Parts: sequence; structure tokens; C-alpha cells
Amino acid sequence: MLDVVTLGETMVLMTPEISGPLRYVNKFIKQIGGAESNFAIGIVRLGHRAGWISKLGNDEFGKYILSFIRGEGVDTSRVKFDPDAPTAVYFKERREYGESRVYYYRRGSAASRLRPEDLDPDYIGSAKYLHLTGITPALSESCYQTVKEAIKIAKSRSVKITFDPNIRLKLWSKERAREVIMELAAQADIVLPGVSEGEILVGEREPEKIAAKFLGLGVGTVVVKMGKQGAYYATKSESKFIPGFPIEKVVDPIGAGDGFAAGFVTGLLKGYSLEKAVRLANAVGAIVTTVIGDVEGLPTMDEVLVFMGEREGIDR
Amino acid sequence: MLDVVTLGETMVLMTPEISGPLRYVNKFIKQIGGAESNFAIGIVRLGHRAGWISKLGNDEFGKYILSFIRGEGVDTSRVKFDPDAPTAVYFKERREYGESRVYYYRRGSAASRLRPEDLDPDYIGSAKYLHLTGITPALSESCYQTVKEAIKIAKSRSVKITFDPNIRLKLWSKERAREVIMELAAQADIVLPGVSEGEILVGEREPEKIAAKFLGLGVGTVVVKMGKQGAYYATKSESKFIPGFPIEKVVDPIGAGDGFAAGFVTGLLKGYSLEKAVRLANAVGAIVTTVIGDVEGLPTMDEVLVFMGEREGIDR
Amino acid sequence: MLDVVTLGETMVLMTPEISGPLRYVNKFIKQIGGAESNFAIGIVRLGHRAGWISKLGNDEFGKYILSFIRGEGVDTSRVKFDPDAPTAVYFKERREYGESRVYYYRRGSAASRLRPEDLDPDYIGSAKYLHLTGITPALSESCYQTVKEAIKIAKSRSVKITFDPNIRLKLWSKERAREVIMELAAQADIVLPGVSEGEILVGEREPEKIAAKFLGLGVGTVVVKMGKQGAYYATKSESKFIPGFPIEKVVDPIGAGDGFAAGFVTGLLKGYSLEKAVRLANAVGAIVTTVIGDVEGLPTMDEVLVFMGEREGIDR
Amino acid sequence: MLDVVTLGETMVLMTPEISGPLRYVNKFIKQIGGAESNFAIGIVRLGHRAGWISKLGNDEFGKYILSFIRGEGVDTSRVKFDPDAPTAVYFKERREYGESRVYYYRRGSAASRLRPEDLDPDYIGSAKYLHLTGITPALSESCYQTVKEAIKIAKSRSVKITFDPNIRLKLWSKERAREVIMELAAQADIVLPGVSEGEILVGEREPEKIAAKFLGLGVGTVVVKMGKQGAYYATKSESKFIPGFPIEKVVDPIGAGDGFAAGFVTGLLKGYSLEKAVRLANAVGAIVTTVIGDVEGLPTMDEVLVFMGEREGIDR
Amino acid sequence: MLDVVTLGETMVLMTPEISGPLRYVNKFIKQIGGAESNFAIGIVRLGHRAGWISKLGNDEFGKYILSFIRGEGVDTSRVKFDPDAPTAVYFKERREYGESRVYYYRRGSAASRLRPEDLDPDYIGSAKYLHLTGITPALSESCYQTVKEAIKIAKSRSVKITFDPNIRLKLWSKERAREVIMELAAQADIVLPGVSEGEILVGEREPEKIAAKFLGLGVGTVVVKMGKQGAYYATKSESKFIPGFPIEKVVDPIGAGDGFAAGFVTGLLKGYSLEKAVRLANAVGAIVTTVIGDVEGLPTMDEVLVFMGEREGIDR
Amino acid sequence: MLDVVTLGETMVLMTPEISGPLRYVNKFIKQIGGAESNFAIGIVRLGHRAGWISKLGNDEFGKYILSFIRGEGVDTSRVKFDPDAPTAVYFKERREYGESRVYYYRRGSAASRLRPEDLDPDYIGSAKYLHLTGITPALSESCYQTVKEAIKIAKSRSVKITFDPNIRLKLWSKERAREVIMELAAQADIVLPGVSEGEILVGEREPEKIAAKFLGLGVGTVVVKMGKQGAYYATKSESKFIPGFPIEKVVDPIGAGDGFAAGFVTGLLKGYSLEKAVRLANAVGAIVTTVIGDVEGLPTMDEVLVFMGEREGIDR
Repeated sequence: MLDVVTLGETMVLMTPEISGPLRYVNKFIKQIGGAESNFAIGIVRLGHRAGWISKLGNDEFGKYILSFIRGEGVDTSRVKFDPDAPTAVYFKERREYGESRVYYYRRGSAASRLRPEDLDPDYIGSAKYLHLTGITPALSESCYQTVKEAIKIAKSRSVKITFDPNIRLKLWSKERAREVIMELAAQADIVLPGVSEGEILVGEREPEKIAAKFLGLGVGTVVVKMGKQGAYYATKSESKFIPGFPIEKVVDPIGAGDGFAAGFVTGLLKGYSLEKAVRLANAVGAIVTTVIGDVEGLPTMDEVLVFMGEREGIDR
Repeated sequence: MLDVVTLGETMVLMTPEISGPLRYVNKFIKQIGGAESNFAIGIVRLGHRAGWISKLGNDEFGKYILSFIRGEGVDTSRVKFDPDAPTAVYFKERREYGESRVYYYRRGSAASRLRPEDLDPDYIGSAKYLHLTGITPALSESCYQTVKEAIKIAKSRSVKITFDPNIRLKLWSKERAREVIMELAAQADIVLPGVSEGEILVGEREPEKIAAKFLGLGVGTVVVKMGKQGAYYATKSESKFIPGFPIEKVVDPIGAGDGFAAGFVTGLLKGYSLEKAVRLANAVGAIVTTVIGDVEGLPTMDEVLVFMGEREGIDR
Repeated sequence: MLDVVTLGETMVLMTPEISGPLRYVNKFIKQIGGAESNFAIGIVRLGHRAGWISKLGNDEFGKYILSFIRGEGVDTSRVKFDPDAPTAVYFKERREYGESRVYYYRRGSAASRLRPEDLDPDYIGSAKYLHLTGITPALSESCYQTVKEAIKIAKSRSVKITFDPNIRLKLWSKERAREVIMELAAQADIVLPGVSEGEILVGEREPEKIAAKFLGLGVGTVVVKMGKQGAYYATKSESKFIPGFPIEKVVDPIGAGDGFAAGFVTGLLKGYSLEKAVRLANAVGAIVTTVIGDVEGLPTMDEVLVFMGEREGIDR
Repeated sequence: MLDVVTLGETMVLMTPEISGPLRYVNKFIKQIGGAESNFAIGIVRLGHRAGWISKLGNDEFGKYILSFIRGEGVDTSRVKFDPDAPTAVYFKERREYGESRVYYYRRGSAASRLRPEDLDPDYIGSAKYLHLTGITPALSESCYQTVKEAIKIAKSRSVKITFDPNIRLKLWSKERAREVIMELAAQADIVLPGVSEGEILVGEREPEKIAAKFLGLGVGTVVVKMGKQGAYYATKSESKFIPGFPIEKVVDPIGAGDGFAAGFVTGLLKGYSLEKAVRLANAVGAIVTTVIGDVEGLPTMDEVLVFMGEREGIDR
Repeated sequence: MLDVVTLGETMVLMTPEISGPLRYVNKFIKQIGGAESNFAIGIVRLGHRAGWISKLGNDEFGKYILSFIRGEGVDTSRVKFDPDAPTAVYFKERREYGESRVYYYRRGSAASRLRPEDLDPDYIGSAKYLHLTGITPALSESCYQTVKEAIKIAKSRSVKITFDPNIRLKLWSKERAREVIMELAAQADIVLPGVSEGEILVGEREPEKIAAKFLGLGVGTVVVKMGKQGAYYATKSESKFIPGFPIEKVVDPIGAGDGFAAGFVTGLLKGYSLEKAVRLANAVGAIVTTVIGDVEGLPTMDEVLVFMGEREGIDR
Repeated sequence: MLDVVTLGETMVLMTPEISGPLRYVNKFIKQIGGAESNFAIGIVRLGHRAGWISKLGNDEFGKYILSFIRGEGVDTSRVKFDPDAPTAVYFKERREYGESRVYYYRRGSAASRLRPEDLDPDYIGSAKYLHLTGITPALSESCYQTVKEAIKIAKSRSVKITFDPNIRLKLWSKERAREVIMELAAQADIVLPGVSEGEILVGEREPEKIAAKFLGLGVGTVVVKMGKQGAYYATKSESKFIPGFPIEKVVDPIGAGDGFAAGFVTGLLKGYSLEKAVRLANAVGAIVTTVIGDVEGLPTMDEVLVFMGEREGIDR
């Protein structure tokens, strides 16, 4: 019944009204963000069915997140409310030079209390793909066990696993991140690392070498995200670099990787070739950066096709 | 008593506080917009007298528009309030890639009820130029008749007619737009088409060919607007391409064409050569794009001259 | 499968950031409003299942409304997008004295194109109550026919009909409103008029007399809404005035009537006595007025119980 | 050609977004304020013709003020721009208890450079009433001379003089204020003091005694403003206290006195009895306090009549 | 060198731009709040010297809090930055009915890592009063030990101890709160409980009985805060109820208790009688509620005196 | 005890919420700005001690400025409040093309009443550097005398003098500016002119020639600021051009020069070579332009080092 199922934490995102150091920001705008729900919303926006498994605090912010994601058309029937733990919050700091920063208030959050028992094998089994990231196992031991359980379920039901490392060094050490993420990635069918993640995980910065390392572990398909430049994909039998789409003004880069993943998996669901799927992924990732917010810029299929020049725009 | 008279609809413009899809925009800023009043304000800002003929709803938005335009110094003595129809509204959607979009709420508006009887021949006759656009005839049959009546009056009183096609495919079909606009343009002394309008109207995209077609209909002067690149003008006896002024950051392109027209007619009113008038038009159009809003960026003569490097700026 | 089904138009609501004449309001906040979806959200917030049937423009505002209402947990599986008509918009004007005003931009909207064929008899038949208002038949002839068809379906499937006159004199004349609304109300099981509606519809201002007139038409239960004072209900066999809950500061009265209806029907669904159901309705209506927006103040059952003093609040 | 002419300074008003000490206010909203232009706008809003004489800085704020007041329909043909002095600015501080405060930045402003030569006797002579306040003579010696010249012109042309003391102790000492204001008031046909102004000017706090003092100087009509309570008027032959209109929530009291004056003079222009004119003045003053800003709440005649219960409101 | 020293946690406070459920609030304003720093700022505003001991995260929010409190003139020389823990955050929810709510994100915060070793005995010893609240011991075991150590230091240096129970049931159970707070309060010279705190702590709701219980423990002075009604104080030798100051519109009640404490201690520092000190405390507490924010409304001595009618206000 | 002492006026800065002509700006954000306090804050942010001498109005804006600057850690113990003069205000106008403009409301301000007697020789003598600008002597005769007195004190106590011409032609004529600034600069150890200031002061636009002129007057070190390009420094014995750091998007250039000065003096305090100090100055100036506001973008030493690529950034 689902095309894709995913699990992870979604937080209320407080976006500063202006760029610059947070200490001088007077107003913040409430949005939401979470790698996995970003991905699920992207999948739905592009025309497929997605389910999102999570836990939320039984508070105003938890209800806001549920309404938002359900409103986007993602199936939220397996989301639970935890009466004893809060919904997580994070603050973004937008800078005109250097990288944006984030400040998490997620320790002890409802989502960090996800446990293997929260998983419904039939629900996961009803999907074609299970999408996981390296954020969830970093949240808590029970989250780590939940991810491993999800993988077990998926494998037993022939659900393909896509894995995005999404290393967050604010959550754990490089060493621990490497150890756990490599353990999980090795069980995935598709892995989607970035270049700097390649360096941390397998000690390589060249896309070809990064891909080779993952292929060597038994991963079927590796797509190395190279930011504005594009992406490189490789399987045992084919590989290619696909250039990205130039964006004049990147407004907010956060969420681009999740959009990339949603574009890529959508391509697979549509039966695209890997090359065509990566091209779609590049386009979705690029569009996401033109709007402030993690999910607000996720495009519909029509919008991507117009953006890629494959369809004419609508008359104004 | 007037240098220029124009007629058309002005709407309350709801400008989104941030760029991106409107569904995620939380706040909107109230401004105004309407091709002809944009033009009239441009003329006044540049130092000449302009009158604007229209109908407004007898509601808060109608009063707002009247106050705004009267406040700018445009003569509004011939604007009427219609107690039975609302003032129109439109929403802008600003995008960082692709084109901005607009959403109209103008069907059955007060201005769409303009009728030939609303025109005062002496008022039109007191001006040197009558400025018309292809938007008004698209609003309703009575508006179409009103435009034709205005042309008749102008011709009988030796008022020169400037015509900006301003095709709005949200208001009518390409076919109907072409038919009516060509009928009206053929009666104008000066026509100011854009390149893509040339394609719709006369099936050409090259400025020289577009101009030739209009000259062939008996139009005296054609100025083809080429966006950032500049503009090309042609009469029976002369023609030239005038390069535009580079703008580092286009903030809002809507209204640039109206500013261009205001700059060009101002040049004519000042007795400039066509070349100099087009150069002024290019500069005004460019400046308009640096400010959010249709009219807020319209410059004074001093500001244009400083912008064009023909006068020194004021000390800070 | 549903407790309640309803049908009607929902509009994007532009709420002014400050009170006072709209011409001086600079910023507007985007919300949503529509009597029937307000009601449906109220039902869900209070713990029951509601479905909402409507048509939306295939535009950003239509998508926003769908996401919002679906996000609230209302079933929107029968909502259609009309590619040829826009989503309606309305502006509120908040005044510190006198009544708030509204400005509609809904003529020719997608929802005004609802037709009898848009109704799924099985969907309506799956609910216990069908909630209708006097707004929908005022939108267009096809909407009027749709409401009549819905009544026919409900009657054939033993679905009880609740009807809120909701007279909008901006949409039709008093005469036409009276004629149509009385025709429809006469077929309802429960009618919920306000006092001034009673005057327009049956020429009475006293709750007892208003109720008597409707009972005389065969309506089973009449609840006359009396604003802050409370409400009066009557059936053939019982009647009583139930005083309202005092609210220190009414922030926004719009939406209170829809909240009242949601509270009353919730009471019926819970098997409350009429007296207890009206008391709940009074409380819900009162709470709604404490928050800006049509639906933002709709309470959960817990919140109403605390408000009514029937349950202790949570520790801060 | 004018019903009323007035002269004085108008400032850009920076209104704090929230109430409380200004040091903690982060955002300010730009509006305008000036006792005499408030009055002139009030007159026009109520249906008569008003002209406003002033000087503005040749800067963005000066142009804003001119556009605003001209937009409201006040004749601004006699307003001059001074290239060498700035437009004045003032900040309001809104408090929930005690009185609002203002912080002026008007010393050396363009308006403080008004001189007798700036007056056009024919312009003043074309009006029925000249309205003056005690603010203008406090701005500078040349402003004081200008006011005296205006009085001379009015007297020579049979223009009636209305005078509102408007004592501003931030601009001069009590002693100097009393001396100059009494000198000017003695020449007016109508004087409109407040109670606390009565205390400063004539040493009395009782309306009857205040009025008696002014009548003793030869003033024809005295109207003592008593805030929420209402007003007391007196001539040689009649006198009466007229109660005010209760306002549930005063949002911003500044500008109420100017609205009162506009209401009163409008009454006179309409040929009302003094009693009826004062009643109108009370209503206008009350309505003004319901909107933030000096002029934004000034009502039309229709709105006042509905407010006073003399006309039915419009259907929503 | 200090009049007062205090210790505790200060958080970044996210204040909703509008009242109502947080899930519908779009914008939040950054402020600060913390019972003890509120108190310290109040003391400085009223003219005395205060020092605040705390720990902050070495992040933007920590720097913001330090700048704010230092900017207010509180001595922050003993505040430390903890590189390994974040600055706490809390969200306020403003409701028009019922009580405001708060949502804490303070678990594991920098301030929760305060330890006894962070205290400088000489610093505490340089003050006349040490002010403590029941919040700090609820934050962590080390905070509890720190408070006990502070009491020990104060007692050894003859620094008087004021204690405000400030029960926060979001931080601990009623039982644990009672146990610890009673242990600490028993060592204080002055205790300032509220009525509902009296119920939790000593099982009484009548001010006289609450006071008697604390006096029985050896506390020298007890002041029972009774909200709008005022306060009741008692020592072994005297007792009295002092009525509060009526406030027309309470904008934000949070922080009133801290203002009360600051007013009371200021009275003691000035050598006021207990009656006069409590009257000052009532006034300060009342004024605080008229401004949004915990500290923004804290008055200067001049402002309180004007508010209490003991001094004339400044001319506008 | 201080590393640097400076003196001058700080104003409340009203920053427009959007760019474009101020007449269309609806909201303004309150910040602060003043060349010397910008510099002092820069010094403290970079890790050294700074004291700021000034006078403020005894009003809300004066208290705001004091709290802000004290909050930043600058010593404000020598700042006085003047009860008889207001704190100055200035408005910024941000333009997307051409230069930003400022509108001052500073005539007769508290700071313009600084007098030589306000200086404490021991305070100035406790610093290593005295930083002066050409703005202060332009404010009033007494300010001019105060600057001269400060120079005398510094020289008598071996405090080095840094001087930034900061010519403000809104405050005085070119002729008077040149005369006074050259008189003062000649007594400085270090002078920091911009290129266009070089033209006004010494009639040269080439950095080498500008520097030569100042060196010829006896100035020890000259650093010519060349905007984005970088800076050129020269002493009797060495000279070099140091290229600037490219900034993709300059958000607000105002304050960059003050940041440059703070960076340069910090370099000297750290014992850097002139070349290294100028490089640091270039970096600080560049970073300042990436944030709206005069001081909000001033970086810490860590941030500059990361920006210059001399230290790795923190993990996100």
C-alpha cells in the first residue's frame, strides 16, 4: 500500500527572521524539519505514497508536527505520542558567509524513545523501500536498536533499504558515527553519502573511491552527493558523474540532501534508469535550496520537469 | 492641462513577505499594482502631469488605491466608485528561480465595469498622450468598448496614442488576445511590445522583424523591450538597439515594463531623440526592478540621471 | 465510518495584523475559514470523525486549504480540485467597536461549481450526521442543487441532518435567503438559528417564538444561539434556556457559531442530554472567541472540560 | 473654495509595535501625526474641503507626509519643501497604565522655518474657518509670527478662527505657553481647551469657570473637552454639558482631540446647533481612540452616524 | 560591595507573537527569563546593586543572556560559560482565558551543572541579602548542593537569606518539591510563598495559617503573595494584609512574583517598615504585568512612585 | 587597565525592514550605531578591553544604548546622562543599487554637549590607545574642544592616538572638514583614511600619495582603506598593499570601516606586524558587511581566524 516507509525524528525548527548571529535575531519563524520526514514529504510531493514512523511529545509542538506532515499527505497512522517526553526543537543560524549552524534541543525527546516494539512489521512490509538515515541511531540506544530491527524486518519482507549517512557530529563522536553507520550501511541496498561523509566513513574524498568502498561491502548502488557539482553513481556494472543544476542564489541549503534522496527514490519508483534518477535527484536537491525551510521548497513532478527544461511552464 | 492620460484597472497587490510557494507564506504586505497607474505614477515621478481614469469598488481597498495614487500626484478627478462591485486583488508569488506568478481576484471587479460613457472627451483631449495597454480590453466587453472609444476620442483631438500590449494569458486566450491587441495596436502612434509578445502577436522573436510587422500596419514608432539586454526602436526612417543597464540583483521584475514606458514617454515629452528616450526608458525599467513592488521603485529624474552616470550623487 | 459529514466552501482568510480600517493595514496573516470545515475541525478536535466534501482551485491556496484541513485530521478523500476556477479568498476587518466586516473574493470560485454529481451517496451514508449551512445554496444554482441532493441522500440512508442557517446577506437578498433557507431547514432534523436570523427567517426575535416556528415545520430539535447570553433549545417535549460562559475579552467572534454547532453535535454523538449538549456547545463557542482565526481556538474535549470547571487543569 | 484652512507641522510618527518601555521595543511602524493635519484629514473624511499649509524637508519623510495627506484629499497646494532642514520625527511610547509618552525630533525642522511670507492671503481668505493650535507658535519665533499673520489675514477676510490650545510642555515653559496661547486665543472666535489646559491657562479646572474666563476675553464660543466624560460648551447666551460616548477599549488616545475639533467644525459647517455639533465632536473623538495612529481612526460621516446609533450599519 | 546576590538559571524565552495555542503561532520573539535574574534586574532598576551567579552554554543564546543581564547593570563577573552544555530555552503560551503555559527545554543545561565549587564565598559575603528560589534545587542534584552550600556561606557571613518557593511542578513531584523546599525555607530569614504554594508546602490556603507554619519553623518574616489582592506579611511581633494595586489589563503575569520580591527587598534595603516594603512590592509586581516579558516591565523607583501616586508624573 | 579608550556619539539606528525608498518602508528595526562605539565593541569582541566616553539623553533611547554597549562588555563607567538633551537617532536607507543613505536626527543631542571637563585624564591615561574620529569635532564646538583636550591628555600620558577621518558631509562643509581633520590627524600616531577621504583631505586618490601626505605631516603609520580591494599601509620605513577578502553578498556596508579599525588596533595590541594587522583588519571589515547593522557582524577572534582560513570551523 505504501511506496516508501521511513522512520526518524522530526523537530520544530525555529528559523531566524534575518541572517547573522542568533544573539541579535529578534524574531523566529516556526517551521519543521527532520531528515526522514523531509524525505517522505518529498516522495509525496513527487507523486508517490510514503509513511513516516515516529514518536512525538504530547504537546503543542508534537501536534503541530503531526498536522503538518499529515497535511502534506504522508501516512502518519503509525506515529505515537509519548506523554512523558517533549517534542524536540532546533534553531537554525543563517550566515551569509560560511555554513549555517544548528542548535539542537532534542536530548531526551519523545523520538529518542523509539523502541523496536514501536515497529509494525506488516506496515514496513507493505512498502517497496525503507529509507533510513544515520541520524536515528545517534539519538539513543533504543533508537539504534529500532533501526536495526527495521532493517531486519525489511530484509525478511524483501523491502529494499536506502540509507543516507547524514552524519551529525553534534550527536556523537566521529569514531562512534563511523562504526555504527558503516555497520548499518553495509546492510543497505542503496547508500547515499556526501563527499565529506565519505572522508569520515571510508577515508576517501574522491567519489569513485568512496563508491568503491561501499560497493566492496556489498552495497548494490552507491550515489555520492557532490553538492552544486552534481552526483556520481556506481554499481558493480555501471557508473557515471551527473552534473548538477546551477542555482543563482542558494537561499537555504538545509534539506537539499533529503530532497536529493526523495528525487532519486522517486526515479527508481518510476522505473527510471539510474542516470535519469540521479538527474532528477540533482534537480530536486537544487530546487529545495531556493526556499527557506527544510521542506517548503520540495517540488511537484511538474515543477521539476519545468525546472529541468523538459516541460513548458504555465502562462502567468 | 495634462501631459499624459491613461485608463485601466488597479488592484490591491498582496506581496508575500518571503519568496517561495504561497501555501507556505504566512504574511502578505498590502501594496497596489496596475499597469496603467504604474505608468502614470512613473510619469509624475519623472516630472510631468498624468491623469488616470478608472473605476474602484466603494470599499476599503478602493479607497486605499485612490489615496495612494492621488497621493503620488496623479490626477484622479475622473476616477469613479462603483457601489456594486469590489476592488480587484491580486497575489504575487516570488520565486528565486523561474518566473514570479500572479493570482488574480478581479473577475467582475469595479474596473471591469468601465463603459464608454465613463470617458470625458475634454479630459482626454487635454493631454498630449493617451497611454493604453492590452490588459483593459481583456477585462470585459464594456472595457474593450471603452478602450476603442478612448482611441476614437484621442484621434479626434490629436492626442497621440501609446500602446503597450501587456498580454495576460490568464485573462484570455492567445487567439483572442492577438486579434484584439493587433486591432488596437494598429491604431496607435507608438507600440511597445516585448519579445515574447512579438512572438504571440506577429509570430516573430527578432526585434527587427517584430518592429517591421508593426510599422507595416502603420504604427509610427515601435520600441521592442528586450529585458535586461535593452531595447530596439524603429520608425520608417531610423532604428537602433540600445543596450540596457546591468542590475546586480533584480529584486522584483514586475512593473519594469511600465517603468520603461513611463521613461520613454517622458523622453518624448522632454523632446529627447528616440535614442535618448529609449536610453532613459532602459534606465527607469532597470531601477524599478531593484525594489519590491510595482511602483515603489519608480525613480525621480534626479535619481535616473545619477543612475545613468549623468549627474553626481548627493553626499551621504 | 464517519460520525459526521459536511459540505461547503472553505476560503483562504486574510487576517489583518492590526485592527482598524483595512486601508491602513499593512500586513495580513494567511489563515483559512469556512463554516463547514470549521465545524468539521471542531468535531475532530473534540474526538470524533468528520468528513468534508468540497472543491478547491488547483492553485497554491487550494493546496494550502487541503493540507490544513487534512492535517487537522478531517477526512478529505472526497475533496476535488477544479483546474478552471480559483480558490476563494476573504479579508476580515477587525474593529474595536461595532462588528467585524468581511470582504469576499469568492464569485466563480471552485467551490461554487460543486454539482450533485460530486456527491458519493455511500460516503454520506456512512455518517451519522450530515451538517449543512445556508451559505452553500447561496453560492450558485449548482451548489443549491447539490445541497438538495445531499439532503435526499441523507434521508434515504437515515443520516440525521443538522442545519445552520448562517445567513450571508453579501451573497443574496433577504427574500431569496429566506425562501431557500426555509425550504432546506424544513427538511432538517436539527436547526441552529441565531436570534437575528430568526428575525429574517420567521419574523421573530424571541427564542421561544423562533423555535416554535421551526418546530411547526416539522423540525425535531431547534437550538437558538443567543451569543454571549447562551442558547435556548426546544423539541416537541422539552425546552430550556442554557446560560453562556462569560469571556473577559472576546478577541475574534467569527467562528463561534461553527464551534457551537460542533460542540452540540459532539454532545449528541456522546449521547448527552440536550441540556448537556447545549452547555457543551456554549462552552466551545465561547472558547473559540478567545483566539484570532476561525478554527485556531477550537478546543479539545479536555480543554472544554477544564474551561467548564469539570476537570482540573494541568500543572504549569 | 475651501471650507477650512489650517497650518502647522506634521511629523513622521514612529509607533512601537508593542506597548511598554521603548528601550525594549524592537520594531516601529511608520505613520504620520500633526495636530493640524489630523484635523484637516478629519474634516475631509467627514465630507468637507480642507487645505493644509506647511513646510516639509526635501527628504523621503517629507515626500511621504505630502503623499499621505494629499492622498487623503486634503489640499496641499500651499505646502513647501525646504531643502535645508529635515522633516520632523516623533516616537510614541504606548503604556498599558498611565499616559502614553512622545519623544520629539523636531528642533530646527523644516516646519519650524515657516514664515509670514509663506502665507497666501487669498488662499486663507477662500476658507470659512481658519484652524490654529498652540503647537505652532511654540516651534519658533518665525512660526509664532506666522500664526499672528494668519490671524490678521483671517480677520481681514472675515474667516472665522478656531483655536485649540494643545499645550506641549516639551516645547516651552508653562509661563511662556500661557502668555502666547492666551494672546492668540483671545483673538479666536472659537476656543477648544481641555480641562488640564484650562488649569494651566486660566487657573481653573471646572468647565464652567474655564469657559467663563475665555468668554470674558471676547471669545464667542468655548468648548471644554472633558475626555471620556464628554464636553461642555458655552457662549454668551447658552451653555450645556454633552456626555461622551463610552468606548470599551481605548487603543490609542492620541489624536482624539484633533478628531473632536474636526467633528465640531464639521457640525458648524453643516449648520448644526452647538449642541448637535458637540455631540458629533464627542463621537468623532471617541472613534479615533479605537485605532492605533493619529489619523487612521478618523471616521466618515456614515461611520459616525452608525456609531451614534442614528443610522443602521451595513450588512456584513 | 553588593546589596544583593542571587543564583539560578536564566533561559532564552521564546514569546509567541500572538496569543492562542502554540501550534498556530507562526512567529516568536526572543527575550530572556529566569526568576533570579528577573529579581536581580528588578533590584538594579530600583536603584541597588545586584550580582547574579550562574552558568551559561558557550553558544549564541548564552552570550545573549550574558549581554542582556550585564547590560541591565547586574554584576555578572561570577557567571561561567560551560563549553559542554547548552543554554536553556523556554516557550511561553499566552492564553486569553485560563493560565499561560510554559514549555521548558532545560534538561541537561549549562545551569543545571552548577556545583558548590562554583561559589565564591567572598562574593556572596559581600552582599547584604542572598536571594534563592525553589527552582534551582529542582534542576539537578549538583544545583541542590550548590543552593545548600550558598546558604551555608551566607549564614557564616551574616548575609540574610530571602527565599521564594517558586514551585515548578514540571521539574519535580509535589512530594519532592515539598521536602526540599521546606528544608531550605526553614533556613531562610524571609520566605515569600504564594497561596497555592502554601497549600502544597504546608497544607494551608489562608495567608495567616501559611505564615504561621513558616514562622513556626523559625523563619523571621513571611510574606504571602496573594496576586491581584495584595499580600499578607507576618513576623513574630506584627502582621498585616496590604491590598494590591488594581491593573486594568494584565498583559503578561509571568515575572510578577519576581518583581514583588525585588520590590520587597528594595524596601528592606531602603530601611522601610515591613508594611511600606510590602506596599512597594505590590506596586512593582503590578507594574510588571503590564508589559509582555519577564523583565521588560520592571520599573525604576521613579516609575513606582508615580504609579503609587506618591510623585507627580513628567509632562508629556 | 584599558587597552583602548574612545569617545564619540552613539545613536539609535532605525534600520528599514526592506530596502528601497524610505517613504515606502512600513517597519523599522531599532539598533544602535556610532563609529566609536562600533570600534569599541569590535575591540572587545576580538578579546581586548575598551572604554567608551560619551553623553546620552536621559531617555529610553539613552538607556537602551547604555545597556547595549555595557552588555557587549565595553566599559561605560565614564558615560554621562544629560537631562536636558535627547539621545540622537538616525535612519538608514538601504538601496540595492548605489549607496545607502542616512538621515540624522542628532542636532543638539546630548553627545553634542560633550565638553573638555567631561574627560577624566586618569581614565584616558590607563589605556594604550586613544581612538578618535572626524565625526566628533563636527558635532559642536564643545565637542571639537573635547577632542583636542583628549589628544592633549593622551600625549601627556604616552597613550598612542589612532585617528579615523570618517568625513560626514552632512555635518559640515568640505572646507571646514578638511581644516579640522587635518589639524587633528597631524597629531595622531596612526591615521586610517579611505580613498575618497584622501581626495577631500589631501587632494590625492592614489593610496601611495595619500599615505605620503600624512607621513609628511609627521604621522607615524598610515593605513589607506580601499574597500573590497583591501588596504595599503605605509610608515617611514615600510609599505605594502594587502588585498581584501572577497564577500559574495554585501548585506550592509555601514560599519565596515569601524570594524577595520578595530581589527587593525587589535593586531597592534597582539604585537602583530603591520602586514598581519592590516590583514586582520581586512577580514574584520569584510565580515561586518555580511550582517545588517553597524555592530551585529563584528566577529570574535575565532570567527576571524576561521574566515581567514587559519583555523578549522566547528562541526555543525
